[in-house]
Amino acid sequence: MMDCKGAAALLRGWDDILILCHASPDGDTLGSASALLRGLKALGKRAWFACADGVDEKFAYLFAGLEPPAQPPAHVMSVDVATTSLLGELEETYTGKIELAIDHHGSHSDFAREAWVEPTAPAACELIYLLLAELGVALDKPMADCLYTGLTTDTGCFRYSSVTPRTHRVAASLLEAGADAAEINRKMFESKSRAQLEAERLVMESLAFSCGGRCAIVQVPYSLYARTGVRESELEGVASLPRQIEGVMVGITIKEKEDGTIKASVRSNPPVSACAICEKFGGGGHPFAAGCSFEGETMEGVLQKMQAAAQEQLP
Amino acid sequence: MMDCKGAAALLRGWDDILILCHASPDGDTLGSASALLRGLKALGKRAWFACADGVDEKFAYLFAGLEPPAQPPAHVMSVDVATTSLLGELEETYTGKIELAIDHHGSHSDFAREAWVEPTAPAACELIYLLLAELGVALDKPMADCLYTGLTTDTGCFRYSSVTPRTHRVAASLLEAGADAAEINRKMFESKSRAQLEAERLVMESLAFSCGGRCAIVQVPYSLYARTGVRESELEGVASLPRQIEGVMVGITIKEKEDGTIKASVRSNPPVSACAICEKFGGGGHPFAAGCSFEGETMEGVLQKMQAAAQEQLP
Repeated sequence: MMDCKGAAALLRGWDDILILCHASPDGDTLGSASALLRGLKALGKRAWFACADGVDEKFAYLFAGLEPPAQPPAHVMSVDVATTSLLGELEETYTGKIELAIDHHGSHSDFAREAWVEPTAPAACELIYLLLAELGVALDKPMADCLYTGLTTDTGCFRYSSVTPRTHRVAASLLEAGADAAEINRKMFESKSRAQLEAERLVMESLAFSCGGRCAIVQVPYSLYARTGVRESELEGVASLPRQIEGVMVGITIKEKEDGTIKASVRSNPPVSACAICEKFGGGGHPFAAGCSFEGETMEGVLQKMQAAAQEQLP
Repeated sequence: MMDCKGAAALLRGWDDILILCHASPDGDTLGSASALLRGLKALGKRAWFACADGVDEKFAYLFAGLEPPAQPPAHVMSVDVATTSLLGELEETYTGKIELAIDHHGSHSDFAREAWVEPTAPAACELIYLLLAELGVALDKPMADCLYTGLTTDTGCFRYSSVTPRTHRVAASLLEAGADAAEINRKMFESKSRAQLEAERLVMESLAFSCGGRCAIVQVPYSLYARTGVRESELEGVASLPRQIEGVMVGITIKEKEDGTIKASVRSNPPVSACAICEKFGGGGHPFAAGCSFEGETMEGVLQKMQAAAQEQLP
């Protein structure tokens, strides 16, 4: 396993560098790739990035002023990618060819020749910040915007327990380098399409309590996407809503997929284990955030099974 | 005008200190008072706090372990209080008797004998942190929890443009001192009563667009409080919702008060001036967040006037 100095030393010796992001790219993988790409260019190197999926319009500012690649890469690395399956359609092309992985996932699988992985970092962008400092790159405003984007999106705007003193100190330095934090936060956290608004309203109408108000479940039927025009990614935040209600210990979201699979996302408050509830159905996850899947079931059937499983775990 | 060193020097010479909070107390005034009170006690001084209004149950942890006062104070100071009218029912008792004011409001009126005011600080708690450091107080976990509470509530969890590098560095130090940031953020930002949930749902049902989707208005009739059991303070966040919708440049919330007064809160995106819209009706505020009041009007009448005023300001 490599550290920051090792990764910097490796990159100093390279040119023509392709940076891979994970599929369904989020602010952290895109912010990491774009900041590093800009940093490598500032050092006079040629670099570009690739991602299996398109970049959402709200992240377009991360790539302003960057040009497409001109030639095949001499070196390939990845940022914020935990396993090669997360490369999506790029998996086949690049598996076995990745020379350096920089990641912050505890579940990182050892797919790259060299890897710098810090599972205690709440965002890959925190690591890229340290890397650019080690490389002697002076942060400019676009780099600061990219790194701030990853930092804020992967920490729910500094809200999660994964945030450390170092995270806040990196944020301070990014503001000093000109990151437009308020505008980025507005774009990332305070912007909803009308479709999203309508879809959230319908989801919250399905809210059902059980276990004396300690369990709350909402439903996302597949028909909701066609009915409202909402994109699946726009409804990711919904999973956290039921648990926010006063008195609720277990918040559950059940979502129907195109193929009829039904996925349940469970969020719990201590001491209730979301993971234990999901393990009953072959799923798993973290103690207070977990998930499981059902095949050949109805939404109503899953709802009843999940309510019963929650009841068993409640004290 | 005093600075941090001056305020610390003054406090070093005092004992029996009463700290005043503003009425309708929020996380910043309560966090400031409680942290300072604990710091003064750590220095061997007697201190306590007073507030015209009761402390909401969600802030109860700020005062755990503190005892009520035993005698009348020798010295009176205020934290996060911009003018004496914000002392509420304590105004009459303490006006003219306040020896030191520590505040971060640009609108601070010069009511105290000495004042340390920094309008660029996003929270009074940021100043109290600096003051405790100047006084040589070693932060313990309860003090860190109090200061973190004010910092996060007054910045929308580090989201607003008022946040500076210093704010993030103070947050880093508070985490090091043991602040339970994730739990505090959960309590402050991710907890809703059922009444609040239902009231927000009804408010969002009133959503009306105008000006080609660039103006969005929601209504809070006075009857909503009785209908849902929601408290007025629980609906403060509603004012920011309409502007969050994609394409909306002006978001307006109109609220009916018990006496029939109707208040409009306006939030705008640049270049539209919320302040200019409100000035038309004798109100005012900041460029992108302002308010105004109407007497003897109906909700529908105010809605139409506000829509027309928004139309005038839209480019």
